[in-house]
Amino acid sequence: MARIVKHPEQRKSELLTCAQELFFERGYENTTVNDVIEKAGVSKGAFYHYFESKEALLEALAERLAREGVERVADVLEDPALDALSRLNSFLAKFRRLRMESAPVMPGIRADLSGGTSAASPESAAKRRRGHRIAFGAVFQPENIVLYHRINAAVMSVMTPVLARIIAQGVEEGVFHNMDPVAVAEMLLHLGGATHAAVARAMQAQTEIEKDEAADALENLLRLHGAAIDRILGLREGSIRLAEPGYTRAVMAARTS
Amino acid sequence: MARIVKHPEQRKSELLTCAQELFFERGYENTTVNDVIEKAGVSKGAFYHYFESKEALLEALAERLAREGVERVADVLEDPALDALSRLNSFLAKFRRLRMESAPVMPGIRADLSGGTSAASPESAAKRRRGHRIAFGAVFQPENIVLYHRINAAVMSVMTPVLARIIAQGVEEGVFHNMDPVAVAEMLLHLGGATHAAVARAMQAQTEIEKDEAADALENLLRLHGAAIDRILGLREGSIRLAEPGYTRAVMAARTS
Repeated sequence: MARIVKHPEQRKSELLTCAQELFFERGYENTTVNDVIEKAGVSKGAFYHYFESKEALLEALAERLAREGVERVADVLEDPALDALSRLNSFLAKFRRLRMESAPVMPGIRADLSGGTSAASPESAAKRRRGHRIAFGAVFQPENIVLYHRINAAVMSVMTPVLARIIAQGVEEGVFHNMDPVAVAEMLLHLGGATHAAVARAMQAQTEIEKDEAADALENLLRLHGAAIDRILGLREGSIRLAEPGYTRAVMAARTS
Repeated sequence: MARIVKHPEQRKSELLTCAQELFFERGYENTTVNDVIEKAGVSKGAFYHYFESKEALLEALAERLAREGVERVADVLEDPALDALSRLNSFLAKFRRLRMESAPVMPGIRADLSGGTSAASPESAAKRRRGHRIAFGAVFQPENIVLYHRINAAVMSVMTPVLARIIAQGVEEGVFHNMDPVAVAEMLLHLGGATHAAVARAMQAQTEIEKDEAADALENLLRLHGAAIDRILGLREGSIRLAEPGYTRAVMAARTS
């Protein structure tokens, strides 16, 4: 068989696409490195040249999906008419919508700053949603906390400069407190880590009562986090909206559809 | 040989003590589970009954050291004369002193909220300091980020209720913003995760120039974090002191002594 020489980045991207298809279809835990190698038609050596492990593969996939998510909200990020607070809230709202389309999406440091991807049609949205759940649902299992952190770090590396740019605009406009934008972006993203336990509980809730309690607790926590972000940025309470009332329940309902 | 039946908690504690001695002496990475088993004189089965892996052992050790650290600052936590802000700042200052004695101590979510242990005499302080460096220094290596997160979570589980109690007092006194104390404690501890990269850089700095730059960057970041905590708690800027000027350099100097 003639060997087809491909650009390394193209090869890596194809491996990720194969992994994504398998993870979305069968789930992360039911996919082996061999499955990915077979589907991609590459050697074991070639695979390990790009990814040291299956965990590294999911990490890279989370990063790619986060990048795609950011590209999908480029209009909000680039619109010259938006002031910093409107841009930040629009950015958060757009990610919430993406999240509804692809719930539970990959874990971000918080529900609302996490990456996500959208879909063109309702049917494919439902398919993607199911796929995301299968691929990333496992990450919120207690035994996968390590993987959660790896994915988190990958998503954060994508989100930090995006968030820092919005914060820098707010500082320039004199609306946000004058603080180092990158440091503040990192703080806000790390802050979101404090929602992990509440998100995990919401994802693992089984009965209606458990779901109601988990949704209330998460929504309350998101409200507190919004208030904390208001304070860090120097805004009036209620300026940053991390969730509309009912949002958490809607995401949880979308997830089980 | 007659089998000595010990209380499970006592057995677990002895295993931890053996592990601590070995980790402090040879370093975490140069100690095997077999070394610990041999030193403790227990069977492999007994060991794995208590700890599923060497990582779990270091995690449990970090938690125990954090508990010991909290016990050592019990006077500050219990003193009825202290208002909440004084208690919080005294608590942070005491942990900084413990940290100086046992630098680099285990990683906490931040330099100043992490656990630590003290020592009775200067000689044993130096010995402990060296031991801590050997045992926990590896945790800040980039390849051990996973272990860092495990240890962090263990330390956080100890620190959250302690911090929440101080915050609850501040809310009661009407000095801190009225917010759920546990949620705020978790936020503050997670927030500190945003110092990890700067702490790691400081720990890995080799040349004097690198050390100076890393110390300045970390000190500046701790100042920003202090200001963020002031805002979250609703305090005047400068109320929370996470580091005195020169503190970072002093810890770094202590670490290499």
